[in-house]
Amino acid sequence: MSTPYRIHCLVPDLPTPEAVLPFLEEMHENRWYSNFGPLVKRFEAELTAFLGRENGAEGCHVATFSSATTAMELALKAMKLPAGANVLVPAVTFPATALVAMNAGLTPVLADVDLESWELTPDIARAALAQGEYAAVIPVAAFGRPVDPAPWVAFQKETGVPVILDVAAALGQQDIHKDLTYCFSLHATKPFGVGEGGLLVSSDEAMITLSRSLSNFGFQGPAGVVLEAGTNAKFPEYFASVGLVQIARWYEVSERRQAVLDKYLTGLKKAGNSIVLQQGTGDFIPAVFPIYMPGKAEKLVARMDAAGIQTRRWYLPPLYDHPALGHLPYADKTSDMPFAGCEKLRTGLVGLPFHAFLSDEDIKEICDIVAGVYV
Amino acid sequence: MSTPYRIHCLVPDLPTPEAVLPFLEEMHENRWYSNFGPLVKRFEAELTAFLGRENGAEGCHVATFSSATTAMELALKAMKLPAGANVLVPAVTFPATALVAMNAGLTPVLADVDLESWELTPDIARAALAQGEYAAVIPVAAFGRPVDPAPWVAFQKETGVPVILDVAAALGQQDIHKDLTYCFSLHATKPFGVGEGGLLVSSDEAMITLSRSLSNFGFQGPAGVVLEAGTNAKFPEYFASVGLVQIARWYEVSERRQAVLDKYLTGLKKAGNSIVLQQGTGDFIPAVFPIYMPGKAEKLVARMDAAGIQTRRWYLPPLYDHPALGHLPYADKTSDMPFAGCEKLRTGLVGLPFHAFLSDEDIKEICDIVAGVYV
Repeated sequence: MSTPYRIHCLVPDLPTPEAVLPFLEEMHENRWYSNFGPLVKRFEAELTAFLGRENGAEGCHVATFSSATTAMELALKAMKLPAGANVLVPAVTFPATALVAMNAGLTPVLADVDLESWELTPDIARAALAQGEYAAVIPVAAFGRPVDPAPWVAFQKETGVPVILDVAAALGQQDIHKDLTYCFSLHATKPFGVGEGGLLVSSDEAMITLSRSLSNFGFQGPAGVVLEAGTNAKFPEYFASVGLVQIARWYEVSERRQAVLDKYLTGLKKAGNSIVLQQGTGDFIPAVFPIYMPGKAEKLVARMDAAGIQTRRWYLPPLYDHPALGHLPYADKTSDMPFAGCEKLRTGLVGLPFHAFLSDEDIKEICDIVAGVYV
Repeated sequence: MSTPYRIHCLVPDLPTPEAVLPFLEEMHENRWYSNFGPLVKRFEAELTAFLGRENGAEGCHVATFSSATTAMELALKAMKLPAGANVLVPAVTFPATALVAMNAGLTPVLADVDLESWELTPDIARAALAQGEYAAVIPVAAFGRPVDPAPWVAFQKETGVPVILDVAAALGQQDIHKDLTYCFSLHATKPFGVGEGGLLVSSDEAMITLSRSLSNFGFQGPAGVVLEAGTNAKFPEYFASVGLVQIARWYEVSERRQAVLDKYLTGLKKAGNSIVLQQGTGDFIPAVFPIYMPGKAEKLVARMDAAGIQTRRWYLPPLYDHPALGHLPYADKTSDMPFAGCEKLRTGLVGLPFHAFLSDEDIKEICDIVAGVYV
């Protein structure tokens, strides 16, 4: 990648073209390149088995889409929430979490995030529901930190408000409970990347079937007519091919990421106690690697830049500071500080380089710069 | 493809995986798989040259998208037409022509089509404008028949209503005039197929730039913020790779299609004068090959079916008979027969197999069955 950086923040770990080639030969032999072809069907079947094996998914259906964004847009449409209804989303997330609700004709309402998990929690959602009506809640597996499903299952049962998890970066690590709906990304920069693509996972077969139909213009049934207005968000055979190889590579990909994480955890320990990691880091492998150094983020970024090391200030600014999202309503209508957590995080969140191609020297150099910021 | 048919209606003519492999090696070497990478940039540059060489495009910008559908949706959004405004579309077209307007928050209004060209003509559009207000007109290159730009340039100049051409199936044959906006498909079943993908071509650089930004969530500028609400409709490096090979193959692909067309024209001549072809067929190579046999379509389809030959009744039913589109308003509010042309066409339109893998015997067999329908 042609950037001025010597050490990049993210480098995808995708299969070689040679590894994908046998599937491409099969695709070409089939002369079937998109529209729910045999490789997409096989990938969906293998993903179902993978999610059952790795993440406890049972009785769930898996559907593929052109991206996690389109998957979520179509799931929200398929859920038939009332037009314009409120959907609760965290204000620290990739902007797509709010955009999907807008694109589905809903109103994203911005919530604060918790200072431990850096996520929208059931407690924050309960406080929001005490102040307003919501048709759905979209918790986010921020930075790939898997969301504990149990409290959200309880929340959904207790409130009757459906929970759709934006777990874009957490495929392979996110536990699946059949009462919730999950949306994963297969974008190249994700740990389980294929290039472009997204998944819906849910036990609601009718919703999955309708979402899939909406990804093919809304065509349904043998008559070949459009029953509900859809778009084109189909997942092509090529990306299914890469995905089939990626499933087989998952353990080696995860091992490489675990090794990088372990080296970071050791290296950062030396950098002192002032560096805060996202709650649970180490129990999971993050998708990107943000650290929290309150008040020191800009200094750290400048020093990294000077050393030719790329950092990214994910997910900043908070959504309310994006021009296209600044008009969105806030969940907390009473507090002077409706985004106290977000505002604290923004003074210190910095995403460090995190990928399989970092050498021991790279990680040592990065940790030394982090340590030096406090000197 | 696993269908019960011996002769398929459409078989994509895409490059072999081996031919694409050098580009995939380059993509993998770059570790850049989407998000406006170097192969997408090269493909867009080569397409600009191709369209200049083949179709007279001058001073136009070319942008790639995940599909023609998403390209058109984002172009309509980027044009900032008033919310809910009327957009004129033909009632005989692939449903996406209307869906894109709905997805962009506009109201598609259905117009009749001409019995010669089977398309929405400037005369039909003028009659519509006499009865209602329109924010845009979307003429369609039906079945890949290229639209003559000159009368639409005159229409646009005269009425002030912008014209966006849905020329999904006509890439390589559609002449480009810089005053109009064009949307092409790169779907596998198109003559210029890559798998999934779409193009916008326009001299309106600001519109193209905004559409491209909307395909990447609406991120704009160096600050990395969302300036306008977008989605994910990016065109990945893989499809750019296939596209680069497809540009180089265009003459051989076209020659094969021309040879099939020539054999059909000879064979159908023997089948008699009652078979009507779309106006101009022979001056262009159709994308799919519909013939018009008034009152005989069902009989023809049944005989083809019995012989193991697949036909497709594109684009039927007309849009007003799709459940999701039946509520759309009609352009002709005064006539007893607002869709006289569409209704005539529906009694006789049948798409015959049309692709590079048809043998002389296949074509002879098909033409004989067509001839037999009148006996």
